[in-house]
Amino acid sequence: MDLPLFQGVSREKLSELIEKTPFHFLKYSDGEAIAAAGDTCTHIRFIISGEAVAVTSLKSLRVTIKETLSAPAVIGPEFLFGLDTSYPFSVTAKGHCGVLQITKADYINILHSDKVFLFNVLNILSRKAQHGTMNLLSITSGSIAERLAFIILSLTGNNSSHITIEYKQKDLCSLLSAQRTSFITAMNKLHDEGIIQFTPTEILVSDRRRLLDILHTRE
Amino acid sequence: MDLPLFQGVSREKLSELIEKTPFHFLKYSDGEAIAAAGDTCTHIRFIISGEAVAVTSLKSLRVTIKETLSAPAVIGPEFLFGLDTSYPFSVTAKGHCGVLQITKADYINILHSDKVFLFNVLNILSRKAQHGTMNLLSITSGSIAERLAFIILSLTGNNSSHITIEYKQKDLCSLLSAQRTSFITAMNKLHDEGIIQFTPTEILVSDRRRLLDILHTRE
Repeated sequence: MDLPLFQGVSREKLSELIEKTPFHFLKYSDGEAIAAAGDTCTHIRFIISGEAVAVTSLKSLRVTIKETLSAPAVIGPEFLFGLDTSYPFSVTAKGHCGVLQITKADYINILHSDKVFLFNVLNILSRKAQHGTMNLLSITSGSIAERLAFIILSLTGNNSSHITIEYKQKDLCSLLSAQRTSFITAMNKLHDEGIIQFTPTEILVSDRRRLLDILHTRE
Repeated sequence: MDLPLFQGVSREKLSELIEKTPFHFLKYSDGEAIAAAGDTCTHIRFIISGEAVAVTSLKSLRVTIKETLSAPAVIGPEFLFGLDTSYPFSVTAKGHCGVLQITKADYINILHSDKVFLFNVLNILSRKAQHGTMNLLSITSGSIAERLAFIILSLTGNNSSHITIEYKQKDLCSLLSAQRTSFITAMNKLHDEGIIQFTPTEILVSDRRRLLDILHTRE
């Protein structure tokens, strides 16, 4: 079990846990919905085999961010508690995808059962919470590239791949507070630097880590 | 104890905890440093009486955000674990200020001792982690007012008061990606709406909740 939640946990402890806790293993076929945007998080969900695509859309602007989550990964661990316990994204299987899900009550029992689990979850949630602050404090120029990097880094997971943005140019320009011509210039520059590829309706991020360099930050 | 961590915990449980755990109660006088920016978080710290001022500065831009934290409040609970366990802000007593601090190890023991504590901390950290996503997804126009609201909401606590931004106009304009004239126009409009007061070097936020209205979001 390479899942972040289980890091540093002994095999014995894990076997003991698996015996005591109802773990639900689910199989999804290509294109099948794992979770819909707005669904209440009733379970913590882990991708344990294969891949899934998460799609996040802005509320009022036609800008959508897609990312691929590859096993081992956890799906939105910060949406199980807090103010809004519904997923802000949809998650769909990409090819065959295996998911482990545990009810919220059982999840609390696990976290309560051993300090290593507790410590892992405190790390995972704190990282997510620090994220925005660190990226925001690192802004130096307020350039379109920095703003795009900030938005993508804030809305995608740090192990995500195949990040694409589907957009109406008018709306993405609003989100980035950019004029059309400066937007195109900035996209061309990012393209020439090998950071993105783009068409008038889609941006493909070649390497998410390069976006961290733009902000001179780390995750 | 009205601290968020202790919500829903019975008096008996709390008395039992106070007997078992070394709670350090510290008194600070006006202007005394409680924590410096960059300090490693060795303890979880709560303001239990009086007030303190937190000051957050951008790394490369001359823009500084000040906020007042009033008892009962927790100081940066998301910086105790995760990637970067140092405070990104300094905290200074404003008048007499009482602080309760608990070592990281004792804090983990407390969270481990009862599911109510665990549930409270999961809520606190998840809220902090959801924060940025929710605010970002709510952007509709990318206006200067929305960007200012986003930055202030992201870098201050939801119960903070007396929020002020000290700035060099050039640098705040960079952070907001705004031209000087549009910046002044936006500030005048926010002033006329009663949301801020401002001088060429300082912005005073009259009511943080009004900033949530600008983003049509909640916390």
